[in-house]
Amino acid sequence: MGAGQGDDVRIEVGSGAGTYPVLIRPGLLDDLPGLLSEYAPARRYAVISDDRVAPLYGEAAVERCRAQGLEADLLTFPEGEAHKTRKSWSILTDTMLAARFGRDSVVVAIGGGVTGDLAGFVAATFLRGVPVVQVPTSLVAMIDASVGGKTGVDAKAGKNLVGAFHPPRAVLADPLTIGTLPEEERAQGLAEALKHGAILDEDYFEGLVDEADALMAGRTSSVLAAVVRSVELKAAVVSADEREAGRREILNFGHTYGHALESAAEYRFGHGSAVAVGMILEARLGERMGITESGTAERLEAGLRPFGLGGEELTGLSLSQVMGFLGADKKVRSGSGRFVLLQRLGQLAGDGGWSREAPDDLIAETLVEGLSGGAATVS
Amino acid sequence: MGAGQGDDVRIEVGSGAGTYPVLIRPGLLDDLPGLLSEYAPARRYAVISDDRVAPLYGEAAVERCRAQGLEADLLTFPEGEAHKTRKSWSILTDTMLAARFGRDSVVVAIGGGVTGDLAGFVAATFLRGVPVVQVPTSLVAMIDASVGGKTGVDAKAGKNLVGAFHPPRAVLADPLTIGTLPEEERAQGLAEALKHGAILDEDYFEGLVDEADALMAGRTSSVLAAVVRSVELKAAVVSADEREAGRREILNFGHTYGHALESAAEYRFGHGSAVAVGMILEARLGERMGITESGTAERLEAGLRPFGLGGEELTGLSLSQVMGFLGADKKVRSGSGRFVLLQRLGQLAGDGGWSREAPDDLIAETLVEGLSGGAATVS
Repeated sequence: MGAGQGDDVRIEVGSGAGTYPVLIRPGLLDDLPGLLSEYAPARRYAVISDDRVAPLYGEAAVERCRAQGLEADLLTFPEGEAHKTRKSWSILTDTMLAARFGRDSVVVAIGGGVTGDLAGFVAATFLRGVPVVQVPTSLVAMIDASVGGKTGVDAKAGKNLVGAFHPPRAVLADPLTIGTLPEEERAQGLAEALKHGAILDEDYFEGLVDEADALMAGRTSSVLAAVVRSVELKAAVVSADEREAGRREILNFGHTYGHALESAAEYRFGHGSAVAVGMILEARLGERMGITESGTAERLEAGLRPFGLGGEELTGLSLSQVMGFLGADKKVRSGSGRFVLLQRLGQLAGDGGWSREAPDDLIAETLVEGLSGGAATVS
Repeated sequence: MGAGQGDDVRIEVGSGAGTYPVLIRPGLLDDLPGLLSEYAPARRYAVISDDRVAPLYGEAAVERCRAQGLEADLLTFPEGEAHKTRKSWSILTDTMLAARFGRDSVVVAIGGGVTGDLAGFVAATFLRGVPVVQVPTSLVAMIDASVGGKTGVDAKAGKNLVGAFHPPRAVLADPLTIGTLPEEERAQGLAEALKHGAILDEDYFEGLVDEADALMAGRTSSVLAAVVRSVELKAAVVSADEREAGRREILNFGHTYGHALESAAEYRFGHGSAVAVGMILEARLGERMGITESGTAERLEAGLRPFGLGGEELTGLSLSQVMGFLGADKKVRSGSGRFVLLQRLGQLAGDGGWSREAPDDLIAETLVEGLSGGAATVS
């Protein structure tokens, strides 16, 4: 898992409107003004960060832009998924309007997944759309959320239900920012990396497990290699199916159970943790259905363990509640109440479409086992 | 100005995503279920109308759909530009989510320009975008607003500042609905038709003036012919430049002064009336600049008069206020503080881009003349 250092790694992502590059390099943030001028020239930049990331990276980015003669302003919002709302979106938009940003502006989203989604939606709808540049500073954003053009906010009825596809002009990823995160946050991002391996690349999955200690410690070379490989895998998927009409659905592996558990647990554990448990349960479901090779769930579980993933305490959750959320999810997002199933680790079950229905009794059985500590509560 | 009756007139509009048809036929609304099934098949339809149009057309449309076996629900919002807001958008979206509309739904916007813009923006952002079918029932929507893919809502800082480009699957126009409008509303729509003639087709402009009485009375054959020709002209423009990077800007003739006057007058006269006065002033500005053939403003004025357009009382407005709105518009929408100028009636001044800057003193002089009753307050 080596990747060149010094030069940018550059990965092209296909999009309805053409392609855009993901540039990855430790130290890249120092060159932000030059990269913005090159990939998204604008009369004025609206740099959007949450109030935790702003003092870490947002303020410095604006100062650097100004020092290079670019007009840039910092806009902030309160940290956290609870603020990924239409209200935050309205406030940011009105702030930009009051500050007289015009159609020749570009939004620069610096932060984690929440910032990318929220600022991306601001850009998608400001004066009917201005370009956005994604500058992910969390591992989950770098590995997953910043690539693919999904933007949006949450509604009362659920997460990400309001939004738009708005592909960025460029994704600028500096793996040095990952070293400054708490270990728990890196683990949340690594869950998505492990998912990429589980569905598409067994060697990548095993390589991540082998480097678990270095990755959890945030060692730059290991993080860089993981970001590059995950972005390569994700870019290939979304290039083929930006709007999730088909193949992109495979990225939902672990997410059907995962979303329902997250909702039932009222988000008391992170998204990565929920997806990790979801992957184990969906592998067990696939095994029960005779589709997934026997022993796959166990290998997944063993691979997730060094990252502190897959062992969430689920015993407090009720079966009927989780089943209710599975049903609601199914209704609202037709298709995603379905399950993406593995054939074996690193390979999807390919026939019958990208996802499939599962019998309700097997869905429930698998869940009962998980909720009673039989599957997911290894520790 | 003849157009076939009996068969649908069909005009294709080019769009980033392909093309979509505008179908125009008196009585077309009776066949709505069949047309929806053909052009926008869906598991479920969300029919959106305001509370004035709902009892006229929305309820009947839903009943007709259900009678044909289509699943359809009616969603309404309070009539008027004052309700083209993010709040109405949120309520409509949440209502659809609570009613469990999924990604396999289609939004059907039945009504005037406000409904098309608002329901179109709901569709653009619902679960990151579902298709919309535009069913315009006002003349301004039929002739202008429903074609071109612009959707959005107003913000405190101004009209249409938040939105998205979301081309419809189809525009279904039934000119019989125009006969039911008050004469004043028809005049507002005819202002945009006269604009199409003024910038692109002198014969069309003169033909409209010749048929002023029939058009104002809502005679179907005259309305049909005007809708067809205006949609042909507009379709050609937006097909070439959907996102208003260039040529589409010509449709803003009359709108630079028009928007500023509307804002300064706090919308006490209609959009069409504002554009009519704007066209006269912009023709006078062009004459002052030596670009527009002398006498053009006078011909415009004479053509608008039979429609009761171009004679708004402006004497209450202050020069500094209107100039302030012109400046604000210029800042927020870079480009649209510029002016689209005619060479002569039916022909644009073609060199130097689609729009151009004008000297501040001439902008002000033209305005002073208008505000003091010298230009626009013919009666």
